[in-house]
Amino acid sequence: MRYAARLFPSAAALLLPLTLALSGGSLRADEGMWTYDNLPTQVLKQRYGFEPTQAWLDKVRLSSVRFNDGGSGSFVSGNGLVLTNHHVARGQLQKVSTPEKDYIQHGFLARNPSEELRCPDLELNILVSMENVSAQVQGAVKPGMSEKEALEARKAVMAKLEKASLDATGLRSDIVTLYQGGEYWIYRYKKYTDIRLVFAPEQQIAFYGGDPDNFTFPRYDLDMALFRVYENGKAVQTPHLTWNPKGASDGDLVFVSGHPGRTERLNTMAQLEFNRDYGYPFYLSSLKRRLGVVKAFAARGAEEARQATGLIFGFENSLKAIGGELDGLRDKGLMAKKAADEADFRKRIAADPKLQQAYGDTWDVIAKAEQSQLPKFKELNFRRLGGYRLTGNALTLVRYAAEATKPDADRLEEFHEAGLESLRFRLISPAPFYIGLEEALLADSLQQSLEELGPEDPFIKAALGGRKPAEVAKALISGTQLAKPEFRKELLKGGAKAIAASKDPLVQWAVRLDPFLRETRKWHETQVESVTTPAGERLGKARFAVYGKNLSPDANFTLRLTFGTVKGYPMNGTVAPSKTTFYGLYDRAASFDHKAPFDLPSRYLERKDKLDLSTPLDFVASCDIIGGNSGSPVVNRSGEIVGLIFDGNIESLVGNMIYDDTANRAVAVHTAGMTEALRKLYDAESLVKELLEK
Amino acid sequence: MRYAARLFPSAAALLLPLTLALSGGSLRADEGMWTYDNLPTQVLKQRYGFEPTQAWLDKVRLSSVRFNDGGSGSFVSGNGLVLTNHHVARGQLQKVSTPEKDYIQHGFLARNPSEELRCPDLELNILVSMENVSAQVQGAVKPGMSEKEALEARKAVMAKLEKASLDATGLRSDIVTLYQGGEYWIYRYKKYTDIRLVFAPEQQIAFYGGDPDNFTFPRYDLDMALFRVYENGKAVQTPHLTWNPKGASDGDLVFVSGHPGRTERLNTMAQLEFNRDYGYPFYLSSLKRRLGVVKAFAARGAEEARQATGLIFGFENSLKAIGGELDGLRDKGLMAKKAADEADFRKRIAADPKLQQAYGDTWDVIAKAEQSQLPKFKELNFRRLGGYRLTGNALTLVRYAAEATKPDADRLEEFHEAGLESLRFRLISPAPFYIGLEEALLADSLQQSLEELGPEDPFIKAALGGRKPAEVAKALISGTQLAKPEFRKELLKGGAKAIAASKDPLVQWAVRLDPFLRETRKWHETQVESVTTPAGERLGKARFAVYGKNLSPDANFTLRLTFGTVKGYPMNGTVAPSKTTFYGLYDRAASFDHKAPFDLPSRYLERKDKLDLSTPLDFVASCDIIGGNSGSPVVNRSGEIVGLIFDGNIESLVGNMIYDDTANRAVAVHTAGMTEALRKLYDAESLVKELLEK
Repeated sequence: MRYAARLFPSAAALLLPLTLALSGGSLRADEGMWTYDNLPTQVLKQRYGFEPTQAWLDKVRLSSVRFNDGGSGSFVSGNGLVLTNHHVARGQLQKVSTPEKDYIQHGFLARNPSEELRCPDLELNILVSMENVSAQVQGAVKPGMSEKEALEARKAVMAKLEKASLDATGLRSDIVTLYQGGEYWIYRYKKYTDIRLVFAPEQQIAFYGGDPDNFTFPRYDLDMALFRVYENGKAVQTPHLTWNPKGASDGDLVFVSGHPGRTERLNTMAQLEFNRDYGYPFYLSSLKRRLGVVKAFAARGAEEARQATGLIFGFENSLKAIGGELDGLRDKGLMAKKAADEADFRKRIAADPKLQQAYGDTWDVIAKAEQSQLPKFKELNFRRLGGYRLTGNALTLVRYAAEATKPDADRLEEFHEAGLESLRFRLISPAPFYIGLEEALLADSLQQSLEELGPEDPFIKAALGGRKPAEVAKALISGTQLAKPEFRKELLKGGAKAIAASKDPLVQWAVRLDPFLRETRKWHETQVESVTTPAGERLGKARFAVYGKNLSPDANFTLRLTFGTVKGYPMNGTVAPSKTTFYGLYDRAASFDHKAPFDLPSRYLERKDKLDLSTPLDFVASCDIIGGNSGSPVVNRSGEIVGLIFDGNIESLVGNMIYDDTANRAVAVHTAGMTEALRKLYDAESLVKELLEK
Repeated sequence: MRYAARLFPSAAALLLPLTLALSGGSLRADEGMWTYDNLPTQVLKQRYGFEPTQAWLDKVRLSSVRFNDGGSGSFVSGNGLVLTNHHVARGQLQKVSTPEKDYIQHGFLARNPSEELRCPDLELNILVSMENVSAQVQGAVKPGMSEKEALEARKAVMAKLEKASLDATGLRSDIVTLYQGGEYWIYRYKKYTDIRLVFAPEQQIAFYGGDPDNFTFPRYDLDMALFRVYENGKAVQTPHLTWNPKGASDGDLVFVSGHPGRTERLNTMAQLEFNRDYGYPFYLSSLKRRLGVVKAFAARGAEEARQATGLIFGFENSLKAIGGELDGLRDKGLMAKKAADEADFRKRIAADPKLQQAYGDTWDVIAKAEQSQLPKFKELNFRRLGGYRLTGNALTLVRYAAEATKPDADRLEEFHEAGLESLRFRLISPAPFYIGLEEALLADSLQQSLEELGPEDPFIKAALGGRKPAEVAKALISGTQLAKPEFRKELLKGGAKAIAASKDPLVQWAVRLDPFLRETRKWHETQVESVTTPAGERLGKARFAVYGKNLSPDANFTLRLTFGTVKGYPMNGTVAPSKTTFYGLYDRAASFDHKAPFDLPSRYLERKDKLDLSTPLDFVASCDIIGGNSGSPVVNRSGEIVGLIFDGNIESLVGNMIYDDTANRAVAVHTAGMTEALRKLYDAESLVKELLEK
């Protein structure tokens, strides 16, 4: 399963250095996560004889939905129905479930609008317009400015542009950095927050095959969920994709419109090597440790298991994904290809004295900045609050109070005016907290920080005050009132005064530790980012000069269109087909004697004879996708939806670095399979009728 | 599919150096192709709590059948019914087919004994006794003999022992070299030559998935065939395996009793490297070339395609198998393991002055002998008749006339008295020849020899007489009478005089070229084998001295028993189950839109609803097998047959060198699947009844 991977908060700082610069390289096969303003129309025309009209592009773009907690989706009816993956919907399913009603295990179907379940804190975005503001952003940096001054100037102008756009349009307005700073854009989103759950199958079938089958193909998952979007109490009427119940066929040209989260294809070798040697190994070992804690928690009882299931899924998913990426970084053949790309780029720059003068030293500048982090590596990664959602809420409340009163340009970037509404929406979510899980995770991350930093570290002293991590965690989590939405609402309203006066132990703890975290962050911004951001920008310009604009920018959770062919690939000595059928689902269940995770929900056994078993269930296409694309629609030449992206195959795990269409495949649920299941297994005939309405 | 790989005659000389010496190493998991006299009973008892009785062992051994053209089988009824693979039966199916009746394509079922089809040249062997003659063979070499004299003495005593055994018992008696000369045994076989075809399914289902799925799993092949063995016009009554229609289950301890053809696990690094750098690459490039010729022939028309299908299968099978072995030889990790094994062995020898004195130089002696072949490499491999079966028959007839009158010990080894009856049986086979195919293959191999040796090579001059290869092939093949069994019978009877007087162009050509071939062979025997055989024998003794007898000897197409567990394995990012079902067969067909080689015979579509689709079809076990094991029975603790070996998975292709039970799996047809298919798809109820009789 592919996620934008926001599950592990402490990774954010670590992954920052990953997204900075770029190397050379030429276009490979169907490679490319294209922004809607720069599609490779020549390639599409020559290779596939297809020229999308502006109307086609507008419809697909306006039907594409961003799930702000990390995924994609699409409008599939004229009455606000949105299709995404079960695993994208999973967080909300967890939040609307109770110990008595477990919608993750048993699934959910609203037989009419009144049965739909409102999601506590889900925000969906539709990209309604894009504006190139490169000149303004890049122009803010004046000759003679120091690197620190340039960084500040750039931040100030971006905040100003966002705010001006918000004020002028009322739309959520985000500055988007493309080509590592080669271009800056404002992306404006229509935002929806009244989202209601309509349908989800049992997680057993949505995530059939569990962690073993995750990121592989052939696959037999019904990884789908349906929401309905409301505004002012009414289902919205928007552009949408027509449902094609026949679905994709072998050899078809198809498109995927969605929000890939993160690639590092344009990173320099120095950046890749830094991740290989330091970033990823650290991240993986932390993930493994945390997974053990959550599994131990789940083993305590049925209710604990219900609470922990989402995190277990998330950690296992990340372990398999990041593990695959690290395998790629350690693959000598693959790294040799990346090195050859970079060598070609540098040679072309060196061949032109003017380019060499302007850009020739950039790779070394970046390499030096990467290395400069090493002495600070432990501080950067282990001075953190850790824990889970309660600690995150505490810190955000503390910082909100401090930041929201500053001039917009002076704030930490996640507190810019343009994003505050979304932030407040998340902060006051009525979703439940799992206290035991919060405590176990906090205890373990504090323990790890203690082990890594040592008892004499000033941050550790402030965080623990000489007590044991488990004691501290217990005191903080059992003492805090933050699990109550009303309590959070009051702190939010009360501002700096309320925070200062608060006797809540977790709030006080966050207040005490925030200065350490700000200091670390500041150090990284001024010592590393202030170097790598302009260096990345220079490399972006250098690449335009040498290769033109025929590579797509690295993914950054903004809307992209990618294309490819429905086709099988060489696999493990034979060939994988381009699709699977319900026959295969029953084969896999019987092959494993119906043992978990290959067991089937009971309705699949009881209603088997109703199904046409030859109906396609999942399929693959050579489209270039990555985590964050989960839930994206697969669209055919006619602009109809023929599938639902939910994964990449095991061969695609190195896709963050390199795309190779020999075996890199996007994995999707087939619309024929979804239609057959809704009809024959879930008696959801009215939903099918809505999907099929023209 | 696994074969003993006798398909490519010119490979015989090449593969000779592969089978000579041995290195150290320790027992890995369920590794071992054990001779029936030396089973690891301690391991079986400790690991599985199983102690086979002598009666169990005798029954399994006497039920095990060797197919002399390269495969295994077993008696499965008290009335002479023998089960093997379709691909082992395939040669005979081809020979009994005609342009009008194509049993390979359409399958065959004898509804009663009178409908059974007699095979033209199939000989089956049952191992009835084994005698250790190491003392006699090794004692024939006296101190002071030169290496050449020692070679001759060893050959003489072996011929004498074989002949004496034949005379005393009337049984086919073969000297078997084990542990690279550490031991010599006489294996005595009961021989059957009246073998009749009872059942074969369509090749489409027997070899479902074709070349792509070959050597892989999950798999959906009904790779079975049934023969009945007659003696004196009556079906034989022999010990046989009881048919267990429930078949193997996940986790079961199972045994495979069959005839693995060739492993090189005990080869020295020098020998492995020789194969990696010279032997295999040459072999593969010849195979590819020949495959192209046969495919071009098949493209001429439907009848040509029918004639060529067996060779295409054989060449593709060898290409995939040898290609996988070469990948293993080029795998640095795997070769490092082999090198570590050898280093351990040499260290242990070096640690004991007496052992070092006796064996210390052996590796270097072998390495030197390997290298000594290089200047002769082209002669050794390209001075050959080439072609297909007609050229082989011509040379055998010419040599038979020359050899059969010599004293037994002086003959080329394949003409020893003990084996002559089997040889004559094959030589006078009434099976049809395909003249066009014979000519095309001969023309291409002559062309290749010309390219490699050059026009001035004396052999080339004698073979072509200045004409073009295609002309020579056309003249020889269109001119020869050897396709007529009567003609061959007369030459066989007429002896040297008839050969000398023959005006048959192919016979004359073989007479002219035989001296060149004998010279090359002699050179290899006296310059290489005379060194490597005694060196191998010394290494065999050294290994006994250091490790005891706890490794099994390398495979050499003699009967072996191996054991393992029915279990899945990690595969391509997920796990493979231990079995497949009919559901999976229909999934794979539908997944590929019923396109070849994933299409199904029509009865599978028409009768689908009769089947219980959850019936197991194929399964895997960790048993240690290799080519030649095709058709071997899979036997449970009770000595019942629960499966039918037909392949190894892609991960097992390096099994000739190294066994690793993490992913190395034997692939078998499940008895439940065979029973279900015979009953529901083939209406073979009377066969099922016979199989189920107690």
